Amino acid sequence: MPMTCARVNSLGTSTASSMEITHIISETRDLLRQARAEGKRVGLVPTMGFFHEGHLSLMRQARKDNDLVVVSLFVNPIQFGPSEDFRDYPRDLDRDARMAEEVGVDMIFNPPVEEVYRGGHNTYVNVRKLTEGLCGAARPGHFLGVTTVVLKLFNIIQPDRAYFGCKDYQQLKVIERMVRDLDVPVEIVPMPIIREPDGLAMSSRNTYLNPDERKAALVLSKALAYGQELLSQGVTSGEELRRRVEEFIGKEPLAEIDYVAVVDVEELDALAEIKDKAVLALAVRIGKTRLIDNMLIAR
Amino acid sequence: MPMTCARVNSLGTSTASSMEITHIISETRDLLRQARAEGKRVGLVPTMGFFHEGHLSLMRQARKDNDLVVVSLFVNPIQFGPSEDFRDYPRDLDRDARMAEEVGVDMIFNPPVEEVYRGGHNTYVNVRKLTEGLCGAARPGHFLGVTTVVLKLFNIIQPDRAYFGCKDYQQLKVIERMVRDLDVPVEIVPMPIIREPDGLAMSSRNTYLNPDERKAALVLSKALAYGQELLSQGVTSGEELRRRVEEFIGKEPLAEIDYVAVVDVEELDALAEIKDKAVLALAVRIGKTRLIDNMLIAR
Repeated sequence: MPMTCARVNSLGTSTASSMEITHIISETRDLLRQARAEGKRVGLVPTMGFFHEGHLSLMRQARKDNDLVVVSLFVNPIQFGPSEDFRDYPRDLDRDARMAEEVGVDMIFNPPVEEVYRGGHNTYVNVRKLTEGLCGAARPGHFLGVTTVVLKLFNIIQPDRAYFGCKDYQQLKVIERMVRDLDVPVEIVPMPIIREPDGLAMSSRNTYLNPDERKAALVLSKALAYGQELLSQGVTSGEELRRRVEEFIGKEPLAEIDYVAVVDVEELDALAEIKDKAVLALAVRIGKTRLIDNMLIAR
Repeated sequence: MPMTCARVNSLGTSTASSMEITHIISETRDLLRQARAEGKRVGLVPTMGFFHEGHLSLMRQARKDNDLVVVSLFVNPIQFGPSEDFRDYPRDLDRDARMAEEVGVDMIFNPPVEEVYRGGHNTYVNVRKLTEGLCGAARPGHFLGVTTVVLKLFNIIQPDRAYFGCKDYQQLKVIERMVRDLDVPVEIVPMPIIREPDGLAMSSRNTYLNPDERKAALVLSKALAYGQELLSQGVTSGEELRRRVEEFIGKEPLAEIDYVAVVDVEELDALAEIKDKAVLALAVRIGKTRLIDNMLIAR
């Protein structure tokens, strides 16, 4: 008998499949209302799907911490720019559902776009300053789309905890700030970057890379390691460190730098001098694929 | 024995005074957590204090509909423009507390500014379009301040229902739209305008009026009645009705028009032709005091 048959799911019903897949907000709320009334703790993992080990690590942690684990799976159009990859973003709900069920997820919330952005949608959440540099500079409107959809998901699911990977470090800090500034009653749990054995940070967008690009993409994680090495050797000038990491990446012919930044861990301000630690953050195009990565570097 | 001694308040404790006054978010949440766990329904009346019958009517309705009634009392600096009356806005917590307790309020949440806007506050909620006309045009940034603080209050109190008066009709519509667009789990309950016996809409700002201005201020409610009369007589052109109401107000020497508008009930777009109904909305300065009023007019 497969595990999923034996398992009584946390929504309180015993079914052949223990995982619910919902598409409609009201239906999702109805299912969660009873669990919440019973005092069950809800963990949310917001995703755009096409799961990799990074996503699964968030779900596993959520499974450990909570009575009920909800994964939202929604490719959010308003966080993509007009020339970006919204249409091409990889999607495979069946595969995602199998993977999520295997790690014990109770519910996937997979709404259609028109359920999330209903006619006349005109409300946006803006975290100023933190969203202006790094990916925010390269992708205008991106974080407005992220914060708006994440706040909606928080309001729909009303989780006790929500899990975000550190690969999107600026996103994590922006969401933490939104939650603090708007007093959203949720605990944000940051989770470490999960990497391929050779060091490439896991990303759904890695599927865009052809074999040559896949090799070239290693330049990101290698550049981060090089940045830590420089700091360990006493390069504490943020600007010098940044420039030398840029030079390092510049040696890879398939790489085109979007940004290299040495920033404060909380405020994401560029650091002139690294006192104890910094975040070294990168966005690099490998062919047509824009990849990001970052590392906490410390003296 | 005074009523407040006999009464066991809805927070579950019996005390000489049945009403709590809180100032700190965490303390407020702690008090509400237990009530919510017991399945009690919470009604919120967001206010800037200096209560009049308009506020009290909201509290009485909240008392009827809910197990627990919370009134927030916070003069929100970010919804005032630099030349507006934030400093002069009337405040009297003792008077307000007595009035609220008399109508059965369980808790007043009265935070200091630095508890609401903590260092580095940088997150704002923007409802586009609906906020651009009427009072939004005259008071840039006003609604950004309103929506941001109201969402914060919703997140702090997590009410089942929240009560707003129709005098601030644009505010009501903006908040309804924010709640819908962001899937905020709260029911917005609109409440009718409460007027003085002679027709003046109640407002904390009426206290600014000297006796001559108080008389002149009647021009607002009279202009609204005149607008309904015009529509009943067959004046269905929004522009003609608007112009004739402006002329009516223009006869009052102490009145200076900010706007007169004939708008759609939901979208607040100016109506060229009134099909069945419209909102006639006014903002008029009487001396230095800016007053607003509105009426649903129908054929």
